Amino acid sequence: MHIMSIEPDSALTLAAAIRDCVENVRHCSNCNLLTESDPCAFCSDPLRDGSLLCLVANTQDAFLVEETHEYHGRYFVLGNLLSPLDGIGPDDIHLPQLLAFLADNPVKEVILALNPSAEGETTMNFLADQLRNRVERVTRLSTGLPFGGDIEYTTATTLGNAFKRRYPVRG
Amino acid sequence: MHIMSIEPDSALTLAAAIRDCVENVRHCSNCNLLTESDPCAFCSDPLRDGSLLCLVANTQDAFLVEETHEYHGRYFVLGNLLSPLDGIGPDDIHLPQLLAFLADNPVKEVILALNPSAEGETTMNFLADQLRNRVERVTRLSTGLPFGGDIEYTTATTLGNAFKRRYPVRG
Repeated sequence: MHIMSIEPDSALTLAAAIRDCVENVRHCSNCNLLTESDPCAFCSDPLRDGSLLCLVANTQDAFLVEETHEYHGRYFVLGNLLSPLDGIGPDDIHLPQLLAFLADNPVKEVILALNPSAEGETTMNFLADQLRNRVERVTRLSTGLPFGGDIEYTTATTLGNAFKRRYPVRG
Repeated sequence: MHIMSIEPDSALTLAAAIRDCVENVRHCSNCNLLTESDPCAFCSDPLRDGSLLCLVANTQDAFLVEETHEYHGRYFVLGNLLSPLDGIGPDDIHLPQLLAFLADNPVKEVILALNPSAEGETTMNFLADQLRNRVERVTRLSTGLPFGGDIEYTTATTLGNAFKRRYPVRG
């Protein structure tokens, strides 16, 4: 009904765009990012810091990290987070490809930029074990109060974690 | 209209409870917490860790911190956060009383458990300056992704901060 209510030209443009997606967007053979060129723009950019690798659950999260302007290394897309209850196990997060990536591109630090959810925590623990002897430093994103947040509207878990991970104020 | 729609006994109980609040609830003369007994239950509890002092904006935040079960020290209630635009300045956060409290009760660490908002950050910077030579350690709550949160639904500021403050995963 929506299609019939818009201009035919707009509908055909939409159809062409969808067709273009299906035909041209693929996964980067290096890092799994959704891309039109293989290798992707991140993998082929010589100016990015090759000593850092950021692991994300999906392509969208990589672009959200880009928006922070805090990170200038490379990415690897897992595609999934471990979730035994949903039948998503170690075979579903591209582990062999990740290990091959690290063998080809040795890095100093792997950053696990995954959600602090049950699935994310499980995946971070699993990957930390797998990477321990392969990478010098495996880090995760900080957890605590979100910026602009209010103690009144956080959960006891988040507030308790913010207490445990408190840090000195630069006076 | 609500009062007239409930049982007269319930209305009188409510009236008595309000009257009881007004007559019996006051601020602890030590720490400013709202309390029925002066000094309050926290100040008079010999089992609490006297080497830690947690600064909170209001009494409610102290009770939220209690719910985390991560903290067993004492509290001091500022009553306000600095907000120059609203005319709330250094005179409105009980600074002389705080300094007197610290003179009477020397502590090793002051924890600034304030909101990571503009007002909270301003207040933390101000207090860190004031306390620098009076207390060994001044800390603040960690900032980052909230537990159970999703990278997709956080702001770029929070995600960027979570990157900057990333920490090693215990493998």
